[in-house]
Amino acid sequence: MELNGRTLNSIAWQQETASLRIIDQTRLPHQLTYLELDSLESACEAIRSMRVRGAPLIGITAAFGLYFALRRGAVSVGLACEQLMATRPTAVNLQWALRRLRLALHDVQASEQPRKALDCALQLLAEDAAACEHIGDHGLLLLKALHERLRRPLNILTHCNAGWLATADWGTALAPVYKAHAAGIPVHVWVDETRPRLQGAALTAWELDQAGVPATVIVDNAGGHLMQSGKVDICLVGSDRTAANGDVCNKIGTYLKALAAQDTAVPFYVALPVSTIDFDLAEGVGAIAIEERDPDEVRWVTGAGRNGDLTVARLVPPGARAANPGFDVTPARLVSGLITEQGVVEASAAGVRGLLVSPGAS
Amino acid sequence: MELNGRTLNSIAWQQETASLRIIDQTRLPHQLTYLELDSLESACEAIRSMRVRGAPLIGITAAFGLYFALRRGAVSVGLACEQLMATRPTAVNLQWALRRLRLALHDVQASEQPRKALDCALQLLAEDAAACEHIGDHGLLLLKALHERLRRPLNILTHCNAGWLATADWGTALAPVYKAHAAGIPVHVWVDETRPRLQGAALTAWELDQAGVPATVIVDNAGGHLMQSGKVDICLVGSDRTAANGDVCNKIGTYLKALAAQDTAVPFYVALPVSTIDFDLAEGVGAIAIEERDPDEVRWVTGAGRNGDLTVARLVPPGARAANPGFDVTPARLVSGLITEQGVVEASAAGVRGLLVSPGAS
Repeated sequence: MELNGRTLNSIAWQQETASLRIIDQTRLPHQLTYLELDSLESACEAIRSMRVRGAPLIGITAAFGLYFALRRGAVSVGLACEQLMATRPTAVNLQWALRRLRLALHDVQASEQPRKALDCALQLLAEDAAACEHIGDHGLLLLKALHERLRRPLNILTHCNAGWLATADWGTALAPVYKAHAAGIPVHVWVDETRPRLQGAALTAWELDQAGVPATVIVDNAGGHLMQSGKVDICLVGSDRTAANGDVCNKIGTYLKALAAQDTAVPFYVALPVSTIDFDLAEGVGAIAIEERDPDEVRWVTGAGRNGDLTVARLVPPGARAANPGFDVTPARLVSGLITEQGVVEASAAGVRGLLVSPGAS
Repeated sequence: MELNGRTLNSIAWQQETASLRIIDQTRLPHQLTYLELDSLESACEAIRSMRVRGAPLIGITAAFGLYFALRRGAVSVGLACEQLMATRPTAVNLQWALRRLRLALHDVQASEQPRKALDCALQLLAEDAAACEHIGDHGLLLLKALHERLRRPLNILTHCNAGWLATADWGTALAPVYKAHAAGIPVHVWVDETRPRLQGAALTAWELDQAGVPATVIVDNAGGHLMQSGKVDICLVGSDRTAANGDVCNKIGTYLKALAAQDTAVPFYVALPVSTIDFDLAEGVGAIAIEERDPDEVRWVTGAGRNGDLTVARLVPPGARAANPGFDVTPARLVSGLITEQGVVEASAAGVRGLLVSPGAS
């Protein structure tokens, strides 16, 4: 992402070292640290530990992980894919990216497979950046129309992080925000902190600050009140998996914001590359395996201490039980529209059917 | 509260020292510390800093604060009330308790005022404990009926802390839970952590653990998904101010849970003593001044470090803006019923009208 003259990349292929450079997102916003991935194991660890996260980004990282495995030649394609798929069960992009590589590798001689896998991973990276930029262009039209109607700075609420950190570039939900900011449309973003892992407070707030976009962090409890008080003009969120009927699986808590948006007549849009659509999945509610994460993510929180060093704090009594579902499903009836790289479509079976299936989709 | 043979009190009058002993709730669950209040200033500080919190408890503390002021004789009743009212603007009990004392002090000779104020404060304390116990009895009937229908352990979701820590005894939303547990009805409580101040993770989880009631802490984002998945049988929350039409002002985030409950057909009950009803307030939505608290409560979190000592952690980038509305308003249409000490009534103007106005109500 180009930010006031400097370039920051969530992920970048390093030709010289033949490795993948990522930002370690578990240390943001307190430390900007880069990591080099060069093996299947390091790619799996980065995805599992959420050093890279965001549906598009973990798909791309997994593709490079498969390349690393083939380069070393130690495991079969099937076994490497199994290991990668086990890292995060909910996001469909991971499966999609691996399926796409396997299709590309079909009928390719073993000796040629590593080179082919790398070409394909690099293509995924470039395509995702382009898809996100197109999402930004389509979303910009929505924000422009809203601004022309309201004639005042737009208040946009977002949940979790669906910015350039979550994708190859631009982001999904934040791409229209960056495009609007660049186009001179005054925008202000309400950033849900997004417990338990605080991707909003830690990542979205940092991203928007780097880009000079005005933003205010709020707790996840606050959005309903803000919408009820007329302080939100539109909600923009991302998606980890979208069903064929437009149901949206996204970070836990998204459903609650969609309910408030409907109750207060605030438009609620979901921005996503077509690669996050699971065309095999007729409906999302009740049908998607929701990742149950480590309860310590609820019990403990990581932040910066008074001296700026990373520190942890326990929030509950010793021995307290906790549960930690990572995602929820927002029924399509609560979604105003899906902003994709192919345009804005209705969140419905008819809307989704109109989209061109991306290569690699099942 | 009687807990497995030992007694814990959120607040207690100490005859020997003529002071009010409170639990410092800002240090729970990490440290159980008591404080002695014996002046107007210490009472104001305890309310403002949320060492005591919960609508009923701050009303009682304010009543003792007024007594302390009269005992010292340095300020007028009016001035002392003004200072006390400025500590927390949203909860109506504070105003109600002070109005009740002023009514009682009317026509009382100056020399007799301190003794009268103390009597009245002690009466409020006893009445609140009795009211909460009655709320528990009425709520128990609801839980009993639900258990007879479902014939399995009941999953109850609660937000913030509306237990005995928030009242003179028993609590409001948790009183039925304690009564059910004592009656042998198997209950399990989903505890919303309740950012920013974490009254759920810190206080409700601790209270339920002390009483041996099974509980699981979740982030505030999770309740919608749990309701959608059939894992919540009933929601029980408290109220800081209830309008004459049944609209409920409670801890920020309550509205979001009420929306999810309606969307998934989960009963959503609000438990409150009649003293939290603002009979002057026709409607709650848009009409209640919502306390805007220090944004550092959003930016920083307090917990226990690895060594068990209290520690703080910053969650956002340095300089990040934050907003911190303390309450929201749940429209009566989303509330299944109000559980009061006088019985369960409909959350509507008709339902509220049927309640006997408590002395001190305006």
